[in-house]
Amino acid sequence: MDAQIGKQSLQFAEAPYIVSSASIVGKKEGEGPLGKLFDVVGDDDKFGQDTWEEAESTLQKEAFQMAVGKAGLKPQDIRYLFSGDLLGQTIATSFGLMDYQVPLFGLYGACSTCGEALSLGAMCVAAGYADHVVSMTSSHFASAEKQFRFPLEYANQRPLSATWTVTGSGAYVLGKQRSKARITGITTGKIVDYGIKDSMNMGAAMAPAAADVICQSLSDFGRRPEDYDKIITGDLGIVGQEILWDLARQNGYDISSVHTDCGIEIYDAKKQGTGAGGSGCGCSAVTLSAHFLPKVETGQWQRILFVPTGALLSTVSFNEGMTVPGIAHAVVIEHA
Amino acid sequence: MDAQIGKQSLQFAEAPYIVSSASIVGKKEGEGPLGKLFDVVGDDDKFGQDTWEEAESTLQKEAFQMAVGKAGLKPQDIRYLFSGDLLGQTIATSFGLMDYQVPLFGLYGACSTCGEALSLGAMCVAAGYADHVVSMTSSHFASAEKQFRFPLEYANQRPLSATWTVTGSGAYVLGKQRSKARITGITTGKIVDYGIKDSMNMGAAMAPAAADVICQSLSDFGRRPEDYDKIITGDLGIVGQEILWDLARQNGYDISSVHTDCGIEIYDAKKQGTGAGGSGCGCSAVTLSAHFLPKVETGQWQRILFVPTGALLSTVSFNEGMTVPGIAHAVVIEHA
Repeated sequence: MDAQIGKQSLQFAEAPYIVSSASIVGKKEGEGPLGKLFDVVGDDDKFGQDTWEEAESTLQKEAFQMAVGKAGLKPQDIRYLFSGDLLGQTIATSFGLMDYQVPLFGLYGACSTCGEALSLGAMCVAAGYADHVVSMTSSHFASAEKQFRFPLEYANQRPLSATWTVTGSGAYVLGKQRSKARITGITTGKIVDYGIKDSMNMGAAMAPAAADVICQSLSDFGRRPEDYDKIITGDLGIVGQEILWDLARQNGYDISSVHTDCGIEIYDAKKQGTGAGGSGCGCSAVTLSAHFLPKVETGQWQRILFVPTGALLSTVSFNEGMTVPGIAHAVVIEHA
Repeated sequence: MDAQIGKQSLQFAEAPYIVSSASIVGKKEGEGPLGKLFDVVGDDDKFGQDTWEEAESTLQKEAFQMAVGKAGLKPQDIRYLFSGDLLGQTIATSFGLMDYQVPLFGLYGACSTCGEALSLGAMCVAAGYADHVVSMTSSHFASAEKQFRFPLEYANQRPLSATWTVTGSGAYVLGKQRSKARITGITTGKIVDYGIKDSMNMGAAMAPAAADVICQSLSDFGRRPEDYDKIITGDLGIVGQEILWDLARQNGYDISSVHTDCGIEIYDAKKQGTGAGGSGCGCSAVTLSAHFLPKVETGQWQRILFVPTGALLSTVSFNEGMTVPGIAHAVVIEHA
């Protein structure tokens, strides 16, 4: 059985199920329009820890435990973990997940990591390499600002094109155990570089990669945008969304009527002062789990294309005058 | 067909072949005992670039091209790339490989990345998800010192327990196309933390993870150390090697007669002043390609266990007083 479809996609003959998922977020996300949907909202963004990095590790720890618990499983039932985060050397993942003693594939795909983790996890289960895996990721506003821009204590100002890194972690148990949603296919993205050099305008940096993988996916699977109830990008925000629609239109696809973006949905940008929208690995991970996946599970939606988007930015490359290339990975999720 | 063996291992029914590989290294590695075996030795460690990071990107670019060329393929024949490096947000990979326009799974496993990339690449090919993939990684002495310890310009002194980051990149084309070596199984490692806090003694931090995955692999496959012509760790160096032998012995396995370490073999530590040995993602990647794999391909060796080892160290976690946990991934390579 060959699962290869088109240039960049796979279609799974035995599509793995999303057995369960969990989301944990910070205070600001809890105050946003989706606030009531998350499994846990912390009232202290340090989550009882001394540092922002340990706080982010705690998010991963809790999300893993909740997702595994909801599936009626124990950590030792999970054969592989696919996880990563935004921090240098992905320390939120290392320190967050080591206690569970589950074999780990560490990932780095910037904010596209949830798509990468779901893709590899689905490949693994569909091939019979595991009965259950966990795919997950996290981000934290304060650890990300410190890593990529300025420590919060500097109180620097932010342009309106800047996005706001979501404090949160989302975890997914994938397996053969029947549930109401399954991953039927994936399209793996390439790095796309449009020469953007503004670290405060990540939406513009990521939109070309999102357009590339969405159009490729539609072409590989022989589908039109209307074949999806929603096409959901990760964290383009309002600036990136416009660019995405334009680029997709240039490729012959009008996605404007079915497109939405987790970064736009998670905050009320005007009330909450979050600029162009939410961002970070955690943004798409928690929004899928809390807001979109339930609509697939209930059958309100039959099929969605979930497309977490990443900006391959580092302070080192940025300070050396390099561009910010983007990458995005698409995951087809269907009602089962 | 179920490939799951024991607690943490997979055995491939249709084991993927290592179709070709390539290694490129810096000047110091070229002057070491394996100097004549590498495909390319640069005489300028900047490889014609302006920064150390761009130099490392160039290493990946060249290694990819050489490996693909040796296989008689073109970049567009490669369905997926599995790659990562040590730098924050793995920028050596992003900027090195984006020109090839191959769908990318970005990885972070510290210096275990070569094992992680070969594992995921082999899983992907064995499952029929791709006809050819490239698994690769890199490191660079100067970009790593800047990232993890001190910029070279500080001229700080190094203790003897410190290892020397290898400047180099190794790339592997995996596929169904018959060759002289194949990946018949893998054992995926967990994070193991023995509480080491010395960033200048990575061998001690990684040895427990190496012992854990080697003993688990022997147990999962029902093998004894003597069933391997060599068990080859990535970059434990002479300090880590002793700890590994002790820990394995405590688990009932005497591996001392079949064990070697890429970090020990790549330099003449006394003559070259490299302390405890070589390290970095590139260390195991280039040493397997240039030195060990040919022995399997010619049939001098029938079976080896290749175990790249990683220390999950970041300057942020280190400065916050955290430990340095380790991880290692084992890959079974057999003559075909």
